[in-house]
Amino acid sequence: MENEVLIFGHKNPDTDSICSSMVQETLNKKTGWKAKAVRLGKINKETQFVLDFIKEEAPKLIEKVEEGQEVILVDHNEFSQSIEGIEKATIRMVTDHHKIANFETSEPLYYIAKPYGCTATILYEEFKTFNCKIEKREAILMASAIISDTLLLKSPPTTRFDKEALEQLAPIAGIDINEYGLKMLKAGTDLDDFSPKELTNIDAKVFEKEGTKFEIAQVNTVSIEDVLKRENELKAVINQTIEEKGLSLFVLAITDILNSNSEIIALGEKTGVIKVAFGKELENDKAFLEGVVSRKKQILPNIDKNI
Amino acid sequence: MENEVLIFGHKNPDTDSICSSMVQETLNKKTGWKAKAVRLGKINKETQFVLDFIKEEAPKLIEKVEEGQEVILVDHNEFSQSIEGIEKATIRMVTDHHKIANFETSEPLYYIAKPYGCTATILYEEFKTFNCKIEKREAILMASAIISDTLLLKSPPTTRFDKEALEQLAPIAGIDINEYGLKMLKAGTDLDDFSPKELTNIDAKVFEKEGTKFEIAQVNTVSIEDVLKRENELKAVINQTIEEKGLSLFVLAITDILNSNSEIIALGEKTGVIKVAFGKELENDKAFLEGVVSRKKQILPNIDKNI
Repeated sequence: MENEVLIFGHKNPDTDSICSSMVQETLNKKTGWKAKAVRLGKINKETQFVLDFIKEEAPKLIEKVEEGQEVILVDHNEFSQSIEGIEKATIRMVTDHHKIANFETSEPLYYIAKPYGCTATILYEEFKTFNCKIEKREAILMASAIISDTLLLKSPPTTRFDKEALEQLAPIAGIDINEYGLKMLKAGTDLDDFSPKELTNIDAKVFEKEGTKFEIAQVNTVSIEDVLKRENELKAVINQTIEEKGLSLFVLAITDILNSNSEIIALGEKTGVIKVAFGKELENDKAFLEGVVSRKKQILPNIDKNI
Repeated sequence: MENEVLIFGHKNPDTDSICSSMVQETLNKKTGWKAKAVRLGKINKETQFVLDFIKEEAPKLIEKVEEGQEVILVDHNEFSQSIEGIEKATIRMVTDHHKIANFETSEPLYYIAKPYGCTATILYEEFKTFNCKIEKREAILMASAIISDTLLLKSPPTTRFDKEALEQLAPIAGIDINEYGLKMLKAGTDLDDFSPKELTNIDAKVFEKEGTKFEIAQVNTVSIEDVLKRENELKAVINQTIEEKGLSLFVLAITDILNSNSEIIALGEKTGVIKVAFGKELENDKAFLEGVVSRKKQILPNIDKNI
């Protein structure tokens, strides 16, 4: 395996990170690259639903890369969200839909980014570019990623390209978008098995701005109230994380995917930014943000601008 | 003009920067974007040959952008090579073939990079992706850029994609590659009109690594000897530049495009890096580097690794 090019998404992988890695592997094979999808963390329940649906095992878990390891990044570019050792790896390709930050290579590379709702939508277009036929397996993987990242095309980062891709992929995948999508999203909101520590870490990303480190975590649910039953335990582990990682701010967004709202818990020395970013005073470390469901498009830019 | 999206290549524009900006404008128009090609510096003689050939004026010169100005970068991504004010501009798109460094955006964007010899080769493939017909004008512009960046497909960054693009473009452009190419390259080596100061600035780029700033300039010639007649004057202006910009190293590569070699003049406190990077001792601040013609592929990576 050492000599193989490795493909992976971000830490705390979500459905787009896992599915897009697997699709990138297929696309690369079709275009003459030998590369293997791996993953940087635990499979979440939503993604497990997709893997069960196609009856496949998850890609292999890896924890760090050696100097000079050739890698392909999907669904992320920030080194803080990537694998241990990324600074000394050789990045051959990136397929991503996020803003670019702290990114640096020592050689020219393939970098395909588009401001879409989902990495899989970019991959869908790459299949067209290379005139490659999309098989059922890849159609399911890409459709699942799009449904996940756009919350069934309802979240703000959704573009017409995501919509078009999903509509084209659904018949190849043999799925009814709404029926399959709701089942998949609901599978992801079953949070009972998670400890408070795990809950704040299901989909958490660390960001850095001019030396200030902050983390934004998100959990999807069909009942915010249910999650807040563990409010005190959640706050305790968040405070612990702040201390361990030296964070200035930790925001946990508890997102109601049926009604498209979020309740946030914000802790850390820089919680003052919440008032500026969202016009809402924190009450008991919490604020209800109406219509806010997207970390990338709604939560991160507002915090990033004001922190 | 304030509200228009601006397209530009790097400072000290070469033929790829100018031609690719102009082609990007056309491609964007065809795909529904309104954007205007501009330039960040003086047109060199090689590029003037191309503009004369298609009987067009150069894109408008601009010197800085205001906060929030929407821009499209071609043929570069490093802010040190870009326009004044780039940090506060909104970068909507990048088309580039260089390594990525010090690059940062506040929003997702289009970023298309490929490790090819020339930006225009990427644009050629974009025309195919979007099913856009390539007209004679754009074929001439892209072919000229490829000939320039690859020194008629002979320099090391040349890939099979550049070769394929040039071969497909030549008949549309109505040119014989070698005849047109040699005329164009020779037009660019007419250095008589340049002052020593201008000569060190024709194609100069500043790089930064962990706080160390260095500059690599390159002039193409058919006679290294001819250029070295002005050796003392060149050294004087290089030393002046080092002082003005606070550089640790300045390398001027005088490249013989017919025989594919370079003589370099290296000055600054970090000239020791030359020995490590190229295995050649400087004699009288100079070293002859056999087979070295590419800043991007041969000179920069070796210096960057060892400085």
